[in-house]
Amino acid sequence: MSTLSGSIMEYETVALDEKENCVLIIDQTKLPGKTEIIRLKSAQEIWNAIYLLKVRGAPAIGVSAAFGIYVLARQIAGEIVGQSTRQLAGQFAGQITGQIAQHTAGEEKEAEFEAFYRRFKEQKEYLDSARPTAVNLSWALNRMERVCLQAGREGKGLSEIIELLHREAVKIKEEDIQVCRSIGEYGLGLVKPGDGILTHCNAGRLAACRYGTATAPIYLGQERGYHFRVFADETRPLLQGARLTACELKSAGVDVTLICDNMSATVMKNGWVNAIFVGCDRVAANGDTANKIGTSMVAIAARRYGIPFYVCAPTATIDLATPTGAEIRIEERPGEEVTKMWYKEPMAPEDVKVFNPAFDVTDNELVTAIITENGIAEAPFENSLQKLCRTQK
Amino acid sequence: MSTLSGSIMEYETVALDEKENCVLIIDQTKLPGKTEIIRLKSAQEIWNAIYLLKVRGAPAIGVSAAFGIYVLARQIAGEIVGQSTRQLAGQFAGQITGQIAQHTAGEEKEAEFEAFYRRFKEQKEYLDSARPTAVNLSWALNRMERVCLQAGREGKGLSEIIELLHREAVKIKEEDIQVCRSIGEYGLGLVKPGDGILTHCNAGRLAACRYGTATAPIYLGQERGYHFRVFADETRPLLQGARLTACELKSAGVDVTLICDNMSATVMKNGWVNAIFVGCDRVAANGDTANKIGTSMVAIAARRYGIPFYVCAPTATIDLATPTGAEIRIEERPGEEVTKMWYKEPMAPEDVKVFNPAFDVTDNELVTAIITENGIAEAPFENSLQKLCRTQK
Repeated sequence: MSTLSGSIMEYETVALDEKENCVLIIDQTKLPGKTEIIRLKSAQEIWNAIYLLKVRGAPAIGVSAAFGIYVLARQIAGEIVGQSTRQLAGQFAGQITGQIAQHTAGEEKEAEFEAFYRRFKEQKEYLDSARPTAVNLSWALNRMERVCLQAGREGKGLSEIIELLHREAVKIKEEDIQVCRSIGEYGLGLVKPGDGILTHCNAGRLAACRYGTATAPIYLGQERGYHFRVFADETRPLLQGARLTACELKSAGVDVTLICDNMSATVMKNGWVNAIFVGCDRVAANGDTANKIGTSMVAIAARRYGIPFYVCAPTATIDLATPTGAEIRIEERPGEEVTKMWYKEPMAPEDVKVFNPAFDVTDNELVTAIITENGIAEAPFENSLQKLCRTQK
Repeated sequence: MSTLSGSIMEYETVALDEKENCVLIIDQTKLPGKTEIIRLKSAQEIWNAIYLLKVRGAPAIGVSAAFGIYVLARQIAGEIVGQSTRQLAGQFAGQITGQIAQHTAGEEKEAEFEAFYRRFKEQKEYLDSARPTAVNLSWALNRMERVCLQAGREGKGLSEIIELLHREAVKIKEEDIQVCRSIGEYGLGLVKPGDGILTHCNAGRLAACRYGTATAPIYLGQERGYHFRVFADETRPLLQGARLTACELKSAGVDVTLICDNMSATVMKNGWVNAIFVGCDRVAANGDTANKIGTSMVAIAARRYGIPFYVCAPTATIDLATPTGAEIRIEERPGEEVTKMWYKEPMAPEDVKVFNPAFDVTDNELVTAIITENGIAEAPFENSLQKLCRTQK
């Protein structure tokens, strides 16, 4: 763990340390007070970082899980070839590859892969249990598992499998950057210089890998002198809007104004908002969108005031296997997040009942358009989303 | 100042200490952690208590202002008859009356009244400047001023004027209790046992004098075994819902669940809410309603989910001189309330811009009915409100 000074813009949201075989993340629970980079090595550290929202945002969770399962796969492979994780930890991937190669040959290979895959699968399922709503978590882990299984079927050795997993994890991150940039370009086409933009929660660079999703049009606009006026909902109870969105936009020089969630209707009524961009954790086949709690209230108010409501969704977040929002499982989190977290003293009576859903579902009819890296989907979403998801494959 | 143990239900929201000539209030900024009764003697103490929300809620502000200007009037009268406030402070109203009587006679009387009224008016205007949105503040102060002027015109002496002001202030409080009870009865007729009720901010007994306004149907229902399930919006940034509403309802044994403001649409969508009751700070002649920031978002969501949205409004809160919500001045408060207040450390980047309006206006078309002590007003509100306000006079 290291506390760093300077703008968060200087650090990566999620990175891989090859040498130490660990995942590096900015601990987002410490923002905006401290920019602290933490190292995740064990399955439990990775699980906790996701569960405790040290890393959050659907795309960033996906990348962390991919890096995480890669780090764990290296540990498993190392143990299987008879070396302790401790010895491996200080060595380069190349050296490990060599050592693993020496130990795997002939008929042993199949048994070795089975042993490897059994533990890989266990760890994968463990990581997958950290948060239920964002599809990217299981999407990224499934991509990693497919690579592993394919390589196993092709009779590849563990060293080669580790190489392939590394390549896939890095690809997931690189794709994320490209996907966000592309969403930014499509989004930017929907607004004009000087516009007021409102966003909820953080679908920013801290939620993805460079441009963010909902913030991608803002960052691209900023590069091109669009001078947007951005309103950031603080986003109770975890204050991702105040702590993260306001923080990253301000440090990038964007004109950002922080408001409480219950003020967004007023800002819209005052005529200060021309478009709303939000991220999403899972989009159902019909366009119903799960995103941070409060998103649906923004969409309902936007409808009343005739303001377009755009969901920025990498196609990885679109879950065609889920027919409607009704089938999306919504994570409930502890009441203490509402009554005690962040505060000097409890802000509600002891033992009061609390309902604390982490997400809500915005009905497709409230969504003006869903912006993906492959283009913009409009209603009827059943068709348009399928088409854009096919484009990807 | 004294910190008390036990339920807040045991103490009065606003009371008058005749002997010490001061206003007693529960310091609501200390709830729910501490039940602290504070004494307000000087104009500045009274102004601060209102400005800093130590006492808040339109009806409670009205009563505090009435008691406050009475306390100040006694001090002014005492000074005018040549005695220091310090000497007067320990004595009973009856004794003061006698002393004042000795000093006022004949032609001096008129000059004395003028001197008294000039300072009374100054203090009245000072108190009136504490908060701009709630009509009850100026409404109560104007009632007190009318009593003062009428008595002056009738050539009454200061001692008698002080007596009349005392009577009026006590009457304002007693009327408030009756008004709330009556609103409760009308409101209770609109719901049925077992209903889910959602409320925003605190229009409870801490905002009024016994039953509250929005909570009056809940308290009356509780007395009669209605077993409501109540949802309290926490109400950012000052958390009146979490600190006050959840606190007072829980201590009265009501089944209350705390939620963040951005969760109310979810609770409604889940089918858990049958009616919404909110208070108000000022109702315009056309039914547009100023109430705590966030109220209009609740109303917009309620409309979407077909849930009746009721405004509980003592007729004192109805301002027929204000044609529409557009003419209601909305108080803006410091950004620190959003970024720093309550927190262990700032929850937003240093110097970030903040927009922090204390109220919003709910358009009349979103209001199902306005419940007053004289009956229930429905659209068109221009007519129905005028009728109910006439009833009172």
